[in-house]
Amino acid sequence: MNHEYFMQLAINEAKKGIGKVNPNPLVGAIIVKNGKIISKGYHEYYGGRHAEVVAIENAKKRNIDLKGATMYVTLEPCSHFGKTPPCANRLVKEGFKEVYIGMLDPNPMVNGNGIKILKEHGIKVKYNILESEIKKLNEIFITYITKKRPFIALKFAMTMDGFIASEKFDSKWISNNMSRNFVHKLRNYYSSILIGANTLIKDNPNLTCRIKNGRNPIRIILDKDGKFYNKKLNIFMEKGQNIIFSNSKKEIKYKNTEIVNETNIHQILKILFERKIDSILVEGGATILSLFLKYNLVDKIHVFYAPKIIGKGISPFNNLKIDKIENSIRFKPVENKIFENNLYWELIPCLQE
Amino acid sequence: MNHEYFMQLAINEAKKGIGKVNPNPLVGAIIVKNGKIISKGYHEYYGGRHAEVVAIENAKKRNIDLKGATMYVTLEPCSHFGKTPPCANRLVKEGFKEVYIGMLDPNPMVNGNGIKILKEHGIKVKYNILESEIKKLNEIFITYITKKRPFIALKFAMTMDGFIASEKFDSKWISNNMSRNFVHKLRNYYSSILIGANTLIKDNPNLTCRIKNGRNPIRIILDKDGKFYNKKLNIFMEKGQNIIFSNSKKEIKYKNTEIVNETNIHQILKILFERKIDSILVEGGATILSLFLKYNLVDKIHVFYAPKIIGKGISPFNNLKIDKIENSIRFKPVENKIFENNLYWELIPCLQE
Repeated sequence: MNHEYFMQLAINEAKKGIGKVNPNPLVGAIIVKNGKIISKGYHEYYGGRHAEVVAIENAKKRNIDLKGATMYVTLEPCSHFGKTPPCANRLVKEGFKEVYIGMLDPNPMVNGNGIKILKEHGIKVKYNILESEIKKLNEIFITYITKKRPFIALKFAMTMDGFIASEKFDSKWISNNMSRNFVHKLRNYYSSILIGANTLIKDNPNLTCRIKNGRNPIRIILDKDGKFYNKKLNIFMEKGQNIIFSNSKKEIKYKNTEIVNETNIHQILKILFERKIDSILVEGGATILSLFLKYNLVDKIHVFYAPKIIGKGISPFNNLKIDKIENSIRFKPVENKIFENNLYWELIPCLQE
Repeated sequence: MNHEYFMQLAINEAKKGIGKVNPNPLVGAIIVKNGKIISKGYHEYYGGRHAEVVAIENAKKRNIDLKGATMYVTLEPCSHFGKTPPCANRLVKEGFKEVYIGMLDPNPMVNGNGIKILKEHGIKVKYNILESEIKKLNEIFITYITKKRPFIALKFAMTMDGFIASEKFDSKWISNNMSRNFVHKLRNYYSSILIGANTLIKDNPNLTCRIKNGRNPIRIILDKDGKFYNKKLNIFMEKGQNIIFSNSKKEIKYKNTEIVNETNIHQILKILFERKIDSILVEGGATILSLFLKYNLVDKIHVFYAPKIIGKGISPFNNLKIDKIENSIRFKPVENKIFENNLYWELIPCLQE
């Protein structure tokens, strides 16, 4: 019996929930009996049935007896009464013989409890199967649960000599169509998108997700200096929600937009966490990118290099200054791609000593 | 008969001359008779026998009759009396029946003449076989012959946010060991290496090629302001030749070093051309990199991105300034590689309208 094979199928199920389950985890489940797949399921939307329950009920609909069956599930079955009864107890009740688990519950308070219930009832349990792939798949959920703040990804496109805009703030267009299409995938992947008020007013972007079946991320604007006024900007006209963090006491006349009187980044992240916003794609400009880096609030960097040279311009982190290379802030590359004539690089922070 | 197969073998022969034939072209030849390879040869060193002659004489040594044979040669056989008699006439004399040619002679004065001689003597000729690969292999030779100046390649390593050094000029080490090993390959590939006097004095580099069987490139220093004095620098202690272009009238006490009183870049390139230096690897700093870019004297860029952020620093082309992205200087990517945690990109200029 190839446990990794079935777990991979469970992962494929889990992925069907991308962009729909936040801030819940992506979870997939496969039920196998006598070496054959008899049912599958995934966590479909926020607050919906857990993957295990979906798979069980899919089987029941077809009058399949689950006694003695094996379940492959990417995340440890839950052990607490939330919106639904605990999945661990359900697995016991249905008479499962074996349960293979991808990763344990990242919440240290409940981690291992689901497994404990299963084992106490005589179910054979194995875990950490394809764990690293599953952890990558649930990077947002894990960060959200363990750090109690949204997962933070920085995104910027640079000329090959290192600028996100010219000295006159021109940035149209540094990257190419294929790179920009990929950015729309990122906007579907992350729950929210964040820019500074300067970029908002100067570029007047739409900040929408333009892929098929995509959903617009929540648009977050940092407006520390109260620069934001009731200008007729594109984001007010677009579908989706806007949150402006500002010291302004002004009222906003646009119904899809809320002003929150807060400018401290740590407080802002706390508010977003409490509102169940599990992830942010930070799209700049340099002041905002530098702010997140300065406070070590970076979980991922998405950077696009374009084969263009402008000599001088705006550097992505120009509010920082490090004089010795040995003191540089270090990252670990995890992915690189070619988008036509652009080079794409994805990095995560190095563990700092 | 698969002509591309045999031409590929001729290319493999040609490559054996890398780093040894400059400023001559890399040329390989394969002789086939009755579908079997009966001899091969390549241009081995500057001024040595041409590849066709090497292949012919390799066959003769073994008393092989070449009448009716077929030759595959990467470059059009020569038609002029140089250091050796014309290869085209030799092929006629040996009784070859067919000749397959990779690329024509890039020198417009002689281009096609070799083919003409072969055809006049009833030899069947086909050309432009694997031409683009062979042109890439001989990019240095083609540029040297057609532009009458050395092939110019810029090389720099940058932090991922775009700096070749910190504001305090620290650059040790931006890239990693694997990238630096690759730079030594580049130093073997190009005939000379060029830096500015500021970089020379500040970094005191060795500028040697540290690969097995490699040879040190000629070291060229641009010292427009006459900053160079008889300092005890590493390049004077290393094996190999140094040429300093300077407005200084001072004498130099090191035997491997010559001062040439010239500071105009176009004149400098003319002098290097006349001295049969067919290629330059420009290793910076920013003033020198900008100079070559400003005068459109760039045939290739080798750039290494390291996963480090320093915020502010020295940009590679900081003597230039372009305000609109649409007016940026554009390049075309031709290669990218991963060197451990560094990203390597190789680009050539876009044809400018």
